[in-house]
Amino acid sequence: MANSKYEYVKGFEQNDSLLPQTWIVIQVDGRGFTRFSQAHAFKKPNDMQALFLMNDCAKAVLEDISDVVFCYGVSDEYSFVLRRTCTLYQRHASKLLSLVVSLFSASYAMKWTQFFPETELQYAATFDGRAVCYPSESILRDYLSWRQVDCHINNQYNTCFWKLVESGMSTTEAQDTLKGTTADVKNNLLFEKFNINYNNLPQIFRKGSIVYRKQVEEVGKKENGEVIKRLRMRIVVEHEDIIRDGFWTAHPYILSVARSKQQQAHPPSPAAKPQLSLSLR
Amino acid sequence: MANSKYEYVKGFEQNDSLLPQTWIVIQVDGRGFTRFSQAHAFKKPNDMQALFLMNDCAKAVLEDISDVVFCYGVSDEYSFVLRRTCTLYQRHASKLLSLVVSLFSASYAMKWTQFFPETELQYAATFDGRAVCYPSESILRDYLSWRQVDCHINNQYNTCFWKLVESGMSTTEAQDTLKGTTADVKNNLLFEKFNINYNNLPQIFRKGSIVYRKQVEEVGKKENGEVIKRLRMRIVVEHEDIIRDGFWTAHPYILSVARSKQQQAHPPSPAAKPQLSLSLR
Amino acid sequence: MANSKYEYVKGFEQNDSLLPQTWIVIQVDGRGFTRFSQAHAFKKPNDMQALFLMNDCAKAVLEDISDVVFCYGVSDEYSFVLRRTCTLYQRHASKLLSLVVSLFSASYAMKWTQFFPETELQYAATFDGRAVCYPSESILRDYLSWRQVDCHINNQYNTCFWKLVESGMSTTEAQDTLKGTTADVKNNLLFEKFNINYNNLPQIFRKGSIVYRKQVEEVGKKENGEVIKRLRMRIVVEHEDIIRDGFWTAHPYILSVARSKQQQAHPPSPAAKPQLSLSLR
Amino acid sequence: MANSKYEYVKGFEQNDSLLPQTWIVIQVDGRGFTRFSQAHAFKKPNDMQALFLMNDCAKAVLEDISDVVFCYGVSDEYSFVLRRTCTLYQRHASKLLSLVVSLFSASYAMKWTQFFPETELQYAATFDGRAVCYPSESILRDYLSWRQVDCHINNQYNTCFWKLVESGMSTTEAQDTLKGTTADVKNNLLFEKFNINYNNLPQIFRKGSIVYRKQVEEVGKKENGEVIKRLRMRIVVEHEDIIRDGFWTAHPYILSVARSKQQQAHPPSPAAKPQLSLSLR
Repeated sequence: MANSKYEYVKGFEQNDSLLPQTWIVIQVDGRGFTRFSQAHAFKKPNDMQALFLMNDCAKAVLEDISDVVFCYGVSDEYSFVLRRTCTLYQRHASKLLSLVVSLFSASYAMKWTQFFPETELQYAATFDGRAVCYPSESILRDYLSWRQVDCHINNQYNTCFWKLVESGMSTTEAQDTLKGTTADVKNNLLFEKFNINYNNLPQIFRKGSIVYRKQVEEVGKKENGEVIKRLRMRIVVEHEDIIRDGFWTAHPYILSVARSKQQQAHPPSPAAKPQLSLSLR
Repeated sequence: MANSKYEYVKGFEQNDSLLPQTWIVIQVDGRGFTRFSQAHAFKKPNDMQALFLMNDCAKAVLEDISDVVFCYGVSDEYSFVLRRTCTLYQRHASKLLSLVVSLFSASYAMKWTQFFPETELQYAATFDGRAVCYPSESILRDYLSWRQVDCHINNQYNTCFWKLVESGMSTTEAQDTLKGTTADVKNNLLFEKFNINYNNLPQIFRKGSIVYRKQVEEVGKKENGEVIKRLRMRIVVEHEDIIRDGFWTAHPYILSVARSKQQQAHPPSPAAKPQLSLSLR
Repeated sequence: MANSKYEYVKGFEQNDSLLPQTWIVIQVDGRGFTRFSQAHAFKKPNDMQALFLMNDCAKAVLEDISDVVFCYGVSDEYSFVLRRTCTLYQRHASKLLSLVVSLFSASYAMKWTQFFPETELQYAATFDGRAVCYPSESILRDYLSWRQVDCHINNQYNTCFWKLVESGMSTTEAQDTLKGTTADVKNNLLFEKFNINYNNLPQIFRKGSIVYRKQVEEVGKKENGEVIKRLRMRIVVEHEDIIRDGFWTAHPYILSVARSKQQQAHPPSPAAKPQLSLSLR
Repeated sequence: MANSKYEYVKGFEQNDSLLPQTWIVIQVDGRGFTRFSQAHAFKKPNDMQALFLMNDCAKAVLEDISDVVFCYGVSDEYSFVLRRTCTLYQRHASKLLSLVVSLFSASYAMKWTQFFPETELQYAATFDGRAVCYPSESILRDYLSWRQVDCHINNQYNTCFWKLVESGMSTTEAQDTLKGTTADVKNNLLFEKFNINYNNLPQIFRKGSIVYRKQVEEVGKKENGEVIKRLRMRIVVEHEDIIRDGFWTAHPYILSVARSKQQQAHPPSPAAKPQLSLSLR
């Protein structure tokens, strides 16, 4: 074959398989979103439509990649959790990363008009990403808690900051006013100066967004009138606390792994895919 | 800071800097493009509009990332060469890879209507990618030659295959007819059976596409009538042979690195950027 | 500083930190030990003195590196388990690997005369190695079980093989005789042909060797005659079954990690080191 | 096979092949040699016997591994250059690193008595190491220059320091005296205060040591009296300047690679090994 003379260059590709049996998180992050949000007149400190668009892109990723079991988004970033036993693309970091980033970025461009029907997309929004392994469920949950605490801290700060700017301060004055203040001070400032109860702000701003396959009960009727209940998985977008145990104990199936250890090291056979619908009388 | 309790999770990110002073090639590859091209009724064996769209996406990447010095595309794949001295994102593989993939994928979705005004985009085209280092210019050129030889081999095969199918063969019969045939036999088949001179097919099909910043001379006039010539860099899309030396000796500036070794190991200062325009009397 | 001109070369070192919070196993393997064992007339299939020497080298590693919590050896290979929370050398794979290999290899040369007083060391025994991460205790135990099962399989085979050779067969004939035989067949062969009950062979041959810090009770007397009992850690070499749970439930402290998660991500302070001696009345 | 249940653990080994066609440098570094040199009463600032021992260990590595083409040593560190086309152990970093470290460490223990017949080895000298790739000969030479400049700077400082201490200063006073002084000031201090011309100190102290296969001419006689000259490779230890071009132009074969690019990506066949002896009339 004429090509064999050059084919040796394939030997320069390096193996980048991620450690088996660890949770993979793929984090995508808006690139230059300060400029992007200004160019498209996003509302400050949070633009609801922009968040809805991000959530819809995350849904597209979850729908496409069955190994993605949970997504958490805040502002212009989104984290995708791949199940511990994922063997997609032999766990090659480049493949997994580029697939998620590609899906997310293309979806953002495609879905733009749906969420911003009156604003023309000036240029492509782009996202960079990384893939990180977490060896245990407990550390994975700490990662997710880290992002949600960050969401809260940033949102509280930004809410104060933009209220101060709206009230006439320069951005520098607003920064100086907030420098080193505690959460309590910021809450008081919002309440006393702007009559805002922080805890009444929309959950989506304070908690960020989660996207996952939720186990829901569907009720139907057979032709003979008999009532049927089925458990079905439905993709949902919610804004729950994911730091405390409550959410996870209510939805244990999200991070559970039914398959045995030996199977996990090999690609799951189609039959091994969780069969989640069942009939109840 | 309330977040510090969880911040330890940042320690799980692993450093993935690519070896300094090597040529970085980022290759993006259409995912499931057989299905995608059917869903959008691409012409076989080559759809000119689909190739133009790919080329325009590559241009968008070249325009955005100044360290990309050369791009080569064929079918649903594109390779981006980053200069040997690139220090963008400290050469982190994930960052560079995700940036290119994101730009390319978002551009594809955004520019679709421009190239396919009468075909609705059914779903997002997605691309996976990888980043590979080549330690010398000679090996980098072998990589590019490998891709261009592949373009030729595949195009010749596909041209024969689809002509046979158009002429009434089943796809299996067409495959059997071509199995193990040499280039000469395929050329004869095209000529004798279909009256096609392979070498007269469009260059873009036979050579693929290259995108780069080309040094061109601009001629203007001063107000006093004096003629001015300037060298300018202009982004071009061409379909040249890049295997032989001719192209590279005609455009030595593409792969040249003016800066000294010590500087190369550090981020280039703005002043170090090549000043390419010069006035001639 | 005159050296700065060349110091940029430090930038080519790549970060090879192992994923935090995973068990690190460093495996060392004799290089060319077939030849080495012939050159030094090792007994076949097992040379007790050679195994004792290996075990003593493992002890030297355990003594030197406090993060090594368990060692398992068989034939010319040894595995060293570093605690999950190890932060020695920031978990750099090269550093950890080279340190263990260096200690082991140097000890082998130094201790040779002690175990082979009448055999001159012809040339240096060398070992290659690798570092592997296991994300959970359960997978780590599977690794150790894998090695111990291997020990058993190889020892059973080798015992048969060398008995057959001693009895007059050529090595090829012995291989052919054993090809594809089950464990039962091999046991019968030993018993019926050579009157050997496999299960009566020394444990060290059948189980390999383990080295660890064992919790033992020391009894002493105060000056006033009062009896004192203390728990102390003492390095021991044993030949136990480590596949079943028994050993691990009897010695839970070997793999236990007392420190909390957040601390684990940072180098342990001296005070955090486990205090293992305690007085009992 | 009974073992298959556990064999999945092999999947946790990660591929660590070094980038093809780059120069590999394996650097080994004494661990805790300040203490080791005190425990064995090494002379200060340089112990000639200790350096000879290091050089002899480097020779052992060069003799054993044919892909090692050059070694440079100073104080308790040694660098081993593996040829760009090396494919030993598929260029796995762990294998190459552990092999060199093992050979070096074992040799140090074995050869100790030969160089220190009257000093008992108290405990094993250990070395850690790392493997680094350099993409071009020019950068490789910068690495070697870096080490030799370091040798000079350290030796000049240490010579001054120990002379001051011998003359009665405390170590702190000696440090303060030398702090921030230029090379000229140090040279003057040695000359005026201690009557030492720095440039007359042994080359081994000022330049470090190089070990390589040197092309030498052997003259012999045939039985019929005819004179024969042969080029032979002989391992030598020298103390030359390797920063300037002189050494390298005098010995171009050290870093030269005769084989063609395509061959280089594959393991060299025995026939491809350089045939270096030739007969001259």
